[in-house]
Amino acid sequence: MSPFDRRDFIRGIALAGLATEANGDEAAPAGATVGEAKDATRNLARYVVGSKPGEIPQQVRKEAARTLLNWAGCAIGGSRHPTVDIAIGALTPFAGPAQATLLGRRERMDVMNAALINGIASHIFDYDDTHLRTVIHPAGPVASAILALSEYRPVSGRDFIHALVLGVEVECRIGNAVCPPHYDAGWHSTGTCGVFGSAAAVGKLLGLTEQQMVWALGLAATQPVGLREMFGTMTKSFHPGRSAQNGLTAAFLASRNFTSSEQPLEAKRGWMNVLSTSRNYTELTNRLGQTYEISLNTYKPFACGVVIHPAIDGCIQLRNQYKLAADQIDRIDLRVHPLVLELTGKKTPQTGLEGKFSVYYAAALAIVKGAAGEREFSDALVRDPAIVELRDRVTATVDPSIGEAQVKIAITLKDGRRLEKSIDKVIGSVDNPLSDAALEAKFLDLADGILPQSQARKLIDLCWNAEKIESAGDIAKAAAI
Amino acid sequence: MSPFDRRDFIRGIALAGLATEANGDEAAPAGATVGEAKDATRNLARYVVGSKPGEIPQQVRKEAARTLLNWAGCAIGGSRHPTVDIAIGALTPFAGPAQATLLGRRERMDVMNAALINGIASHIFDYDDTHLRTVIHPAGPVASAILALSEYRPVSGRDFIHALVLGVEVECRIGNAVCPPHYDAGWHSTGTCGVFGSAAAVGKLLGLTEQQMVWALGLAATQPVGLREMFGTMTKSFHPGRSAQNGLTAAFLASRNFTSSEQPLEAKRGWMNVLSTSRNYTELTNRLGQTYEISLNTYKPFACGVVIHPAIDGCIQLRNQYKLAADQIDRIDLRVHPLVLELTGKKTPQTGLEGKFSVYYAAALAIVKGAAGEREFSDALVRDPAIVELRDRVTATVDPSIGEAQVKIAITLKDGRRLEKSIDKVIGSVDNPLSDAALEAKFLDLADGILPQSQARKLIDLCWNAEKIESAGDIAKAAAI
Repeated sequence: MSPFDRRDFIRGIALAGLATEANGDEAAPAGATVGEAKDATRNLARYVVGSKPGEIPQQVRKEAARTLLNWAGCAIGGSRHPTVDIAIGALTPFAGPAQATLLGRRERMDVMNAALINGIASHIFDYDDTHLRTVIHPAGPVASAILALSEYRPVSGRDFIHALVLGVEVECRIGNAVCPPHYDAGWHSTGTCGVFGSAAAVGKLLGLTEQQMVWALGLAATQPVGLREMFGTMTKSFHPGRSAQNGLTAAFLASRNFTSSEQPLEAKRGWMNVLSTSRNYTELTNRLGQTYEISLNTYKPFACGVVIHPAIDGCIQLRNQYKLAADQIDRIDLRVHPLVLELTGKKTPQTGLEGKFSVYYAAALAIVKGAAGEREFSDALVRDPAIVELRDRVTATVDPSIGEAQVKIAITLKDGRRLEKSIDKVIGSVDNPLSDAALEAKFLDLADGILPQSQARKLIDLCWNAEKIESAGDIAKAAAI
Repeated sequence: MSPFDRRDFIRGIALAGLATEANGDEAAPAGATVGEAKDATRNLARYVVGSKPGEIPQQVRKEAARTLLNWAGCAIGGSRHPTVDIAIGALTPFAGPAQATLLGRRERMDVMNAALINGIASHIFDYDDTHLRTVIHPAGPVASAILALSEYRPVSGRDFIHALVLGVEVECRIGNAVCPPHYDAGWHSTGTCGVFGSAAAVGKLLGLTEQQMVWALGLAATQPVGLREMFGTMTKSFHPGRSAQNGLTAAFLASRNFTSSEQPLEAKRGWMNVLSTSRNYTELTNRLGQTYEISLNTYKPFACGVVIHPAIDGCIQLRNQYKLAADQIDRIDLRVHPLVLELTGKKTPQTGLEGKFSVYYAAALAIVKGAAGEREFSDALVRDPAIVELRDRVTATVDPSIGEAQVKIAITLKDGRRLEKSIDKVIGSVDNPLSDAALEAKFLDLADGILPQSQARKLIDLCWNAEKIESAGDIAKAAAI
């Protein structure tokens, strides 16, 4: 696949995958097996065990820092959600020593439970990172596990970033090998593939031998977490957290020679065959150590499904360019990809959650607030008369010539002027990534009201400089309140 | 299916399933769905929530006590295995308060970890109970969870037995609905179905509402444990333990209204569709509350694969009937079912584990020792000259007319006499269950060297009288050293 084809493929899968129904079943015929299965697990284990921090290009390490910053912001932002409160309340009676920080909170829990809780918190807003091709949210399972670990064992920032890169590599390569059929079958790839990422990253930091790493991946294979059927419930967020925890368990057991299969991925009854109708073994090891899946990681600029991101992106740009106010506007006309109305066609949303499924609200919100973070999807704002008034003057028309990352916007002002904007490559996509500054702004917005701004700024610095700090656990400690 | 057909079906599946390869793929065509999917989870949840201890027939409660006794013996017997030592060592640093007993050991751990460890210990010797139709080992996931819980919250013996019956009902009915295709696909049903049994039993004891029970089953559905690929490694025993732990987590989260799917079993992307190629919804609720799957539970008399149980059974009977000694015997000739030589045809085993795969060793052992418990499959005994000498005078011939639960034995004595024995219904099968006395003897044998005999006897009494004791946690405490 050429880089160009690959980008197209990624973009296609991304929207379809996130759209929950319309995904490319045709991409890999059922029962198909591509590439050489033999020694697949061992080859992957050997790479992880043998990899050295110095081998990872600077640009890749930078992307890992961006992944870390985005993840930490999401975990802090989600830390006050009832989902987190319930999980902490239910599990605290059984929890171990206060070894690790719960980001954005006062409580500390043992490493296993802290990984679970931080993983849950990071996914609650569906605002975390996305590996578009597999629809895996890579940081949740991996960062949650190794950050908690770093408060229990000394882990340098350099080794932490290295392990983050490797964990994301393992989970996303396994995802590449089975997606989309694995995802289409009903598995939530973040949890099912994520457990391998956690096991590999933790195993790397524990210094597992190649044999132990194979066993850790075996223990991961036997603990897949997550059915897509859980989407729309608290259990969806449970998946990255539990997979982080399961990966930790896998690696710690393997470190003491708890045995498992020697070919957990590729055996006749291994994970690849049991959990997917097709598999491409080439994806596991082709150009391993030369390309990095974390380089394909993306970060959402807006706290809603990606299908309406182009409309928000374009409306914010027009607002800023012309310093628009809602009362200047007569009407907003959108030409959108068909999925937009299929998935987000709600005309009169009444709650914050419903607002995420209304392209009309999203466009009006973008004009009025110039932002669409989690706080902009509050019940109060969705019912705010100033926005509702404009929302009712938004139209959306399906246009099959519009791509999924595109939109055409026409704003008619009350003075008769007509302002137009076409979005071709939406902000936050692989082709038009969020800038570092935008990531910082997103982080500050998520941390607002939870961490004092000075603390939030300090945490941003720690993430950017993660590689240089002596103890990666300091990043977690800096996120406590 | 008539009771007679059903027994035949069970017997057929049992041997085939345990034989790891030869299992009845034809029993349920791929893609087949039988019965009404609608409200499947809710109907099951409603039954569990509404069930009252007084509704359970005495005979069923008696079988639950037998299941408990057999499970406790296996867990105590397995408690010194390296698999258990490793798991305790790896997880203790993260464990919570010393809430619950590790059977047969000094350490105590939090409820979650105690369930995991006791579940592991109970399965290590492959000597625990078997629901033959689904090849589920029902007690591991359920008893491990609720016994640990009973040391943390007050649970009466009556409620404990009730919850055990219900948990086994749920896991085995779900197993019936998807097996054998689910098992054939590579899932270790004990872990994948067991998590539902644990969630249901724990949820019952926590007093969940119907809605919470649905969510608990949803949280169970999203945490299946166990690939058959792990067979032959320590990870196999991990499955019942982890599923016990996952079910506990599911029920505790649900008890605080942690939401999950409303139709986790039957939804388009629910557990039944994602984890099996066929499903029979009728199995979930047909005659629910009138029949009890725990009545079909079986207990192994011998610590090896069931295919050579008939040979052992017959040789022990001949030994006892004629007071045979090895040096009286010229030769032993067995006529066996074809699977016997396929799976256990090892002529000169050198280790205890290899001994389990040698019908020749097993027959000689039965004559010399009159028993075939876990201790009879030691490396030392497998190399004992007295047994080896007789072992080499055993022949085995395949006879297609011999059923899987049968054997024909002819022993020729040095004095020229010929002794014959036909086994039709092997001891330990549904049709010829282990007696209470035999279960006690098995328990004592497993506990020997771990618990003083007086303590072991006391524990046996506690199991038989479980329903009458005030606090079920006392059973666990009585199994500590």
